[in-house]
Amino acid sequence: MSLSVVMVGSGNVATHISKRLNNQGVNILQVYSRTEESARLMAEKLSAEWTTDPKSLNSEADLYFLALKDSVLADFLVKSGLKNKLLVHCSGSLGISILSPYSNQYGVLYPLQTFSKSREINLEKIPIFIESSNAETEKKIFQLAKSISTSVNKATSSQRLQLHMAAVFACNFVNHMYTIAGEIMETSGFGFDYLEPLIRETCEKALRLHPREAQTGPAVRNDRNIIEKHLHTLEYDANLRLLYERLTQHISNFHKK
Amino acid sequence: MSLSVVMVGSGNVATHISKRLNNQGVNILQVYSRTEESARLMAEKLSAEWTTDPKSLNSEADLYFLALKDSVLADFLVKSGLKNKLLVHCSGSLGISILSPYSNQYGVLYPLQTFSKSREINLEKIPIFIESSNAETEKKIFQLAKSISTSVNKATSSQRLQLHMAAVFACNFVNHMYTIAGEIMETSGFGFDYLEPLIRETCEKALRLHPREAQTGPAVRNDRNIIEKHLHTLEYDANLRLLYERLTQHISNFHKK
Repeated sequence: MSLSVVMVGSGNVATHISKRLNNQGVNILQVYSRTEESARLMAEKLSAEWTTDPKSLNSEADLYFLALKDSVLADFLVKSGLKNKLLVHCSGSLGISILSPYSNQYGVLYPLQTFSKSREINLEKIPIFIESSNAETEKKIFQLAKSISTSVNKATSSQRLQLHMAAVFACNFVNHMYTIAGEIMETSGFGFDYLEPLIRETCEKALRLHPREAQTGPAVRNDRNIIEKHLHTLEYDANLRLLYERLTQHISNFHKK
Repeated sequence: MSLSVVMVGSGNVATHISKRLNNQGVNILQVYSRTEESARLMAEKLSAEWTTDPKSLNSEADLYFLALKDSVLADFLVKSGLKNKLLVHCSGSLGISILSPYSNQYGVLYPLQTFSKSREINLEKIPIFIESSNAETEKKIFQLAKSISTSVNKATSSQRLQLHMAAVFACNFVNHMYTIAGEIMETSGFGFDYLEPLIRETCEKALRLHPREAQTGPAVRNDRNIIEKHLHTLEYDANLRLLYERLTQHISNFHKK
């Protein structure tokens, strides 16, 4: 049995998930986006219909996949008039209950990954976390999730919020550390590329040893001499200096435990 | 012409560099370490002599490679009585001038990488930064560096301090973000492994796009709703909450520029 889906949204998550579902033989009936261009572009790739009107959603789909920003989802639901349909959102930080006024069959399908339109990505092994309003709905959401990835797990709304927060540290904050490192490299007259072997090895080492065991550097050794030199060098930027200090202190306290 | 080397130190850097030099045909005459066991173990692998006495260093070597912790290097130099030898340290944060009282031929060979004894590592492409007291010394240090890696670059002491600081952000601080993410995963009831695809993709994306362009997440979008949810969830740990806040603010300010 194959599910038919209406894809609501045309952002990074919607783009990647739609493509994967389509390749896996899931029938995407229609794409909704606020802007005509992105709705049409995405629909063409999927051989689907498209609309920019929340009231003109195809009413025949087995499942409505809501891949919108958290901040606009509630408003979309009010406008769309979707009633008693199987509704699934994919947010890390919204509870399942945001969908309960609209249906008895609803749930969440949260992929723990960072998506950019410009990068191809293999979804087959990304962890997907699902939550459902009842057992029957769970079967359908599980089926959909399984057509995306082999790693499908159940998680409650509060577990999912934790997962999302972990992702902020492991992805968004890590990327910002890379950005700062890149800025400092440029100050030193060398490019960001010189960090590539170090960045790759840091990543591999953490994955092999667990990062708790892999920690190195002046903060964990509490090498005040080096720390003071770095703080002195960072005097040109008070905020960056403060960030360095706070991170150093956190590492030092964490490993004293 | 092949150089003969005395390796001072038996830590992570000394272990990896010695092995690589030995494989490349550099003649390691002797290993010094404070403890007999590590001196002997490392020397056996290199078919070299060993000593635990700074005064018993082999005096015939072309080059003395000082792979000690910053904090003990000065003391070792005083004790060793090395005079007018070619001295090379490999610290990111010590200036070249720490060696000037002992010789006219001295310099630095700084490998921009994180080393652990337990992990094999390919040194062939890691960036090495060298600095030298004069042109003749530079030739020898360059020759040594080239036998380790194809990427050998010149950098002054102050450039090197910048490089080291960039490495602290790109490696030590990144690893700490992984550690925190792992802790949060464990709170949620899932293991650190579930983050592997996200961590790998974050790393690849930053290397392909430059991290400035790759930044995603609530901080760069300034999505206060999600940020407040996360801060609320982190109320159980005041220091972690503060760190989240400071990182979020730094990302937000950085991308407003």
